[in-house]
Amino acid sequence: MAEHDKWDDIFTRIAVPEQFDETKSRINSFIDSHKALGKDVVLVTSGGTTVPLESRTVRFIDNFSVGTRGSSSAEYFLQHGYAVLFLHRSRSLKPFSRHFSRLSVLDLIEISCTHADLETLTVKDCYRAKIKKQLSLYESVRQSGSLLCVEFTSLADYLYLLRASCQALHSIGPKAVLYLAAAVSDFYIPKNEMPEHKIQSSDGALQLSLQLVPKMLKPLVKDWVPSAFVVSFKLETDEQILVKKSKDSLTKYQHQLVIANVLDTRKQKVLFVSRLSEEFVSISSEEMAAGIEIESKIIPAVKQRHHEFLNQRQS
Amino acid sequence: MAEHDKWDDIFTRIAVPEQFDETKSRINSFIDSHKALGKDVVLVTSGGTTVPLESRTVRFIDNFSVGTRGSSSAEYFLQHGYAVLFLHRSRSLKPFSRHFSRLSVLDLIEISCTHADLETLTVKDCYRAKIKKQLSLYESVRQSGSLLCVEFTSLADYLYLLRASCQALHSIGPKAVLYLAAAVSDFYIPKNEMPEHKIQSSDGALQLSLQLVPKMLKPLVKDWVPSAFVVSFKLETDEQILVKKSKDSLTKYQHQLVIANVLDTRKQKVLFVSRLSEEFVSISSEEMAAGIEIESKIIPAVKQRHHEFLNQRQS
Repeated sequence: MAEHDKWDDIFTRIAVPEQFDETKSRINSFIDSHKALGKDVVLVTSGGTTVPLESRTVRFIDNFSVGTRGSSSAEYFLQHGYAVLFLHRSRSLKPFSRHFSRLSVLDLIEISCTHADLETLTVKDCYRAKIKKQLSLYESVRQSGSLLCVEFTSLADYLYLLRASCQALHSIGPKAVLYLAAAVSDFYIPKNEMPEHKIQSSDGALQLSLQLVPKMLKPLVKDWVPSAFVVSFKLETDEQILVKKSKDSLTKYQHQLVIANVLDTRKQKVLFVSRLSEEFVSISSEEMAAGIEIESKIIPAVKQRHHEFLNQRQS
Repeated sequence: MAEHDKWDDIFTRIAVPEQFDETKSRINSFIDSHKALGKDVVLVTSGGTTVPLESRTVRFIDNFSVGTRGSSSAEYFLQHGYAVLFLHRSRSLKPFSRHFSRLSVLDLIEISCTHADLETLTVKDCYRAKIKKQLSLYESVRQSGSLLCVEFTSLADYLYLLRASCQALHSIGPKAVLYLAAAVSDFYIPKNEMPEHKIQSSDGALQLSLQLVPKMLKPLVKDWVPSAFVVSFKLETDEQILVKKSKDSLTKYQHQLVIANVLDTRKQKVLFVSRLSEEFVSISSEEMAAGIEIESKIIPAVKQRHHEFLNQRQS
């Protein structure tokens, strides 16, 4: 079987997302409107994919990602003039609201009595400045229409929505950036090998056999968005194998940039690996303590490389 | 190997939760203060447990539970006079704040100009009544100290915290209710069989072998809280096997009540299975449409059975 067949093959082995046609139309309209304005558009993927173990899913394999990298990166892309298609795991962090993800509404608001007998709801003093800031940013983004959020849960949802997004982005050529920060499962169970009902524990120890997910970067770079600027991520717990794996990936998939990071230090340091160079992007401990996020340095660096790439293509 | 050894054995094969001693003290103080007041105390477990596939965890097995049953039940137990120890999955639904779980803070609040140049943050009109109601309930519960929330993530966290909670509850005898609504994994990988680093996809298809988790209901009923009123849950996708499995469970573990439910209809209908009777608790479609929750009927029915049990013990 040719490798090409393998990628396409997976779409016949996984379920089509619910309301897929409707979501595709939303994606297409979003890209079309920014194409008309001549804007750069970035697809940011964020959060982890689930791999169901049963077709009426009770159990699934997941990973630890909550979408920190993706959701903060989306904010900085917006700030740097990109329109952002934010393809994210349902209930993971989202731009702007991520700043309040650990707080319940009930922790932020209090009942206060301003006049006799008149109870009003007010935002607690300590949160007011922060909410005002994020709300202003969120409102201006909403009014400009520069952010579209699309949700996925399973690996199947993700793959179908990724392909649909790429097909829409194809039309803007090198103005498109793909920033593939989602933590996508490497393994899955084809739908015809999945039991329908919940696996019974009375059957004894559980043996699971998962198939390898074909690397979608290959058709993505080669066929879906051949002119786009493509950034992939490598996350490992073992630093030793990181650079080699990043270089191998660039050789194999022929895309522009790998952002490599180690689980324990990923919020302070990443390595930009391209075919010709390796460069650290990092923040100091003082910057970290002051609440500065590494994505505030990653995104301008990506933008610079994207614009160099654009200039080469146009010259 | 005797069955007793098997239950204890698992604690040597799983990791002790972080800050375990500190959490145990919080649980003990909570139970002690309510014991002094002579109050009924319920342990509500809620949400799903994760099963790590690597020791520096990137991937894990999870299940679909977001804690709907547990978090709403906790509210009704509070309303019916119980002190509630709420042992829940981190980031799953919690009493009171669950009503706003789908909404971001930024969707609830707006910037309004009351006077010239004076911007204030206000809660949007449409949410005001709902927030006020939940905030009042939440505040009164906070002031009375009748709710303690304790978080778990992994199966290991859950088992250690469950045992510690039971050990604390032991001292209040039949005044304790255990309402075990958490979706606990039936399978796990012992820590000495887990790879340290992220599983590499280059190794090909993935074979996973999981061990059966011993049923902790056995030592729980027999040794940990022998005088308590214990309620377990059965959730299946296949209705055919539900009643038999519930009856088998009561015979095997000798506890008081199984609440049996089918995945698709669990918000409208459950079956109370005890050794001598089976009884449906349900809400009509009209009640469901009006926003009435089935837990508003389940909890009074549990309370009634708990008080009959208490009376039998005391007479």
